[in-house]
Amino acid sequence: MVHIGDVPFGSKGFAVIAGPCSIESREQLEQTAQAVQTAGAHCLRGGAYKPRSSPYSFQGLGREGLEILGAVSASLGIPTVTEIVDVADLDAIAEHADAFQIGARNMQNYTLLNAVGRTQKPTLLKRGPAATLDELLLAAEYVVSSGNPHVILCERGIKTFERATRNTLDLNAVPYLKQRSHLPVIVDPSHGTGIRGLVAPMAKAAVACGADGVMVEVHVDPTRALSDGHQSLFPSQFDELMRSLGPFVEAAGRTL
Amino acid sequence: MVHIGDVPFGSKGFAVIAGPCSIESREQLEQTAQAVQTAGAHCLRGGAYKPRSSPYSFQGLGREGLEILGAVSASLGIPTVTEIVDVADLDAIAEHADAFQIGARNMQNYTLLNAVGRTQKPTLLKRGPAATLDELLLAAEYVVSSGNPHVILCERGIKTFERATRNTLDLNAVPYLKQRSHLPVIVDPSHGTGIRGLVAPMAKAAVACGADGVMVEVHVDPTRALSDGHQSLFPSQFDELMRSLGPFVEAAGRTL
Amino acid sequence: MVHIGDVPFGSKGFAVIAGPCSIESREQLEQTAQAVQTAGAHCLRGGAYKPRSSPYSFQGLGREGLEILGAVSASLGIPTVTEIVDVADLDAIAEHADAFQIGARNMQNYTLLNAVGRTQKPTLLKRGPAATLDELLLAAEYVVSSGNPHVILCERGIKTFERATRNTLDLNAVPYLKQRSHLPVIVDPSHGTGIRGLVAPMAKAAVACGADGVMVEVHVDPTRALSDGHQSLFPSQFDELMRSLGPFVEAAGRTL
Amino acid sequence: MVHIGDVPFGSKGFAVIAGPCSIESREQLEQTAQAVQTAGAHCLRGGAYKPRSSPYSFQGLGREGLEILGAVSASLGIPTVTEIVDVADLDAIAEHADAFQIGARNMQNYTLLNAVGRTQKPTLLKRGPAATLDELLLAAEYVVSSGNPHVILCERGIKTFERATRNTLDLNAVPYLKQRSHLPVIVDPSHGTGIRGLVAPMAKAAVACGADGVMVEVHVDPTRALSDGHQSLFPSQFDELMRSLGPFVEAAGRTL
Repeated sequence: MVHIGDVPFGSKGFAVIAGPCSIESREQLEQTAQAVQTAGAHCLRGGAYKPRSSPYSFQGLGREGLEILGAVSASLGIPTVTEIVDVADLDAIAEHADAFQIGARNMQNYTLLNAVGRTQKPTLLKRGPAATLDELLLAAEYVVSSGNPHVILCERGIKTFERATRNTLDLNAVPYLKQRSHLPVIVDPSHGTGIRGLVAPMAKAAVACGADGVMVEVHVDPTRALSDGHQSLFPSQFDELMRSLGPFVEAAGRTL
Repeated sequence: MVHIGDVPFGSKGFAVIAGPCSIESREQLEQTAQAVQTAGAHCLRGGAYKPRSSPYSFQGLGREGLEILGAVSASLGIPTVTEIVDVADLDAIAEHADAFQIGARNMQNYTLLNAVGRTQKPTLLKRGPAATLDELLLAAEYVVSSGNPHVILCERGIKTFERATRNTLDLNAVPYLKQRSHLPVIVDPSHGTGIRGLVAPMAKAAVACGADGVMVEVHVDPTRALSDGHQSLFPSQFDELMRSLGPFVEAAGRTL
Repeated sequence: MVHIGDVPFGSKGFAVIAGPCSIESREQLEQTAQAVQTAGAHCLRGGAYKPRSSPYSFQGLGREGLEILGAVSASLGIPTVTEIVDVADLDAIAEHADAFQIGARNMQNYTLLNAVGRTQKPTLLKRGPAATLDELLLAAEYVVSSGNPHVILCERGIKTFERATRNTLDLNAVPYLKQRSHLPVIVDPSHGTGIRGLVAPMAKAAVACGADGVMVEVHVDPTRALSDGHQSLFPSQFDELMRSLGPFVEAAGRTL
Repeated sequence: MVHIGDVPFGSKGFAVIAGPCSIESREQLEQTAQAVQTAGAHCLRGGAYKPRSSPYSFQGLGREGLEILGAVSASLGIPTVTEIVDVADLDAIAEHADAFQIGARNMQNYTLLNAVGRTQKPTLLKRGPAATLDELLLAAEYVVSSGNPHVILCERGIKTFERATRNTLDLNAVPYLKQRSHLPVIVDPSHGTGIRGLVAPMAKAAVACGADGVMVEVHVDPTRALSDGHQSLFPSQFDELMRSLGPFVEAAGRTL
């Protein structure tokens, strides 16, 4: 079992992380955070350092974003997770957030894995878009063997020939990983599908196949999001998702 | 809504098709059929004509297998689905089974699609291992535009780089297809994973993301199966699966 | 070694098959055939029966197309290859063409493989878009074990996550297949790339890695082609390709 | 045009980089380097920092390896390329080697891309195993837009469903990238196939489709290599490869 703040992952409880792809402003994060917390989310996500395919895309607010994240977390009392892309940012992130996220592009960035492995901070490790499940487990082993056992695995979709969805969310990963490892496993249906209308059904499927939680992108106004707007839920949709997850969480013998 | 025998697909009811990969003998099929029927399966599957990658693998009992299927179906009163691989077998299959299955390898065999399209027999169309969802919908359109609207779509896994599982069961397909088509959509977690221990969690996930049914391989003794034994459930496991599906079917607002 | 008409495949000679995707009219085929023959092509391709993803796309001229193919072949003295999609057309195709093509969608249509296997007609077997090389060899084994040893294997691209090209032409296939089988191996850079400007470089690469020939789509006027126009060469481009292949064929110790 | 030492990439000359996967000892590197230089290689490769899927695999000699590389380079007068995995090693690598390699796993490690982009050192950027060609070009843009225009692109195989080869070497990449960018493009047939017997044919194919060079793994004794032995050439095989490349390089209008 791994805790982000006081939220357990891998226990009887089903954990929900929600929030915007990128932190864009204090106002945007605060409004989104309030909405997801009210709807029942346990943790807040939000990126300050954004790895983007193009150097000309929005790269995140950086240090300023981290400080906003820390302030919103403190004011609402909600634990947070944010992505680390550079070892140089480790201390600053450790100060302002409750958990590191290693993004999909960095799943085999061993420098980064070893660095978070030398801390005791919970680390959300996302599967690379072309990583096999065994490679994901070996990547986790870098963190664990460096001394940090607090790793949460995250399935977020792989690259396949299918073009209807942004990625192919591979839910086989959930029971496969649970059978091979004691680490908690969560699912990111937002990146896994890339389509707003598929997030809710795939979140329910994640519950049903045994995931310990989900991570969902929500934005106070997705139409104005600086990144991933098309796959982010409106607050009202997230509220509806939380309600509809309830019966499946119960069917799985867990609590929300 | 499409009916196989009197079993509706695409209604409030969640439909379960179960049975062996191949029909191997009267005894094998009968025992398996009784077991799955007792456990609550609605339809019986079983292959008489088996498309196999190697010409030296077991190719099915052919006509004899069909007759066994017809006899077992009649004696137990359970409707059946079996694969058609050759237009020449169409009448014989139509006589002995309640539904055609177009297998994954034949999803774009337009001769076959047009032939079943000229009947009024329900047709289970499996997604090809490299077919996009839009190609699957277009393949269904061959059947429908030939005059047969009774098509059930089946997600059964696609080929990806991942080697932990036989295929990558793409559950994104379920909500995607449901949003684009009125056809019922079912899921085959046996071929979709190729691993016995992943069948149950993925069947539950199929319910949760909106599938209208599942098709599961069950064999009275998987250790002796002539094909797909490693992914076939033991009868006791299928019984356990049916029980465990219940709460998820209910959570989905459906009945089993 | 396999012969289509008097053209050897798998000998010291490097064989070139060229022609339109679809036979559209006597005039279109004749003009294209004359152009490719003048430029040095050894065999003519042209589809009368076209398997298309959508039932609403042009499906080929059928029997009329076959007759055009036979007539143009006779008048120019160039051997031909054309696709078979239905066992019912076997005799008609055998009458009008010199070789069967089993298309990528039908690589695992065992009914069709067995049917051409019962003839002595050379058969060009295209790799399915999701078929492993070992599956391709096993598909060839269906034809050979049915009695027909005259099989030519054809790499034509596989489905991958890459979207820049229509398929990913997998030239690894050439040396891999040559090392495991005595069958001739040719390459189709037109379908393999789907981009006119990539056909020539990939044809040269095919020569260099040991292919026994190439099959190239050429149309007298690609801008008016009823199918695959964007990947078909203009006659002048094909002429240029034949000239530029020369030095590579010579470097490979072969003749054009 | 980009130079590694005095070796031009992207000129009329076809450039060959050869050497072991990992630097294992002074003796191993020196013997291998002498062999490849004698056979005609222009640059020496050798890894001191090895990113490996498992933390329990050999991770390279690190700083000691770098020093061996520098010493061998100086004694033989052959320019070198070696992988950088951590920004902290940048100065040491810059001191001992002539070019940085960004490995496939780090293609989207933007911290690393930006860091090498702030130097003027030539940088060999390998395509990630699941990176589209457009993502590769955007990754190069990180280096170039940071101020370093000396980027060489390297195709090294992508992950697909095919299991006969370690990766699927995607030679379509070569003409595609050459048509879209002015950067030199080379090919790594060792990682691209993972099979010793496929390296030579695919190297020839790389020449034929327009590559500006190849990078080949050679080991003085592959049977004892600490990594990638099965895909490394014996020195005599590399010598044979260099001879056999000659006619294809000439056919391409280039010089070796």
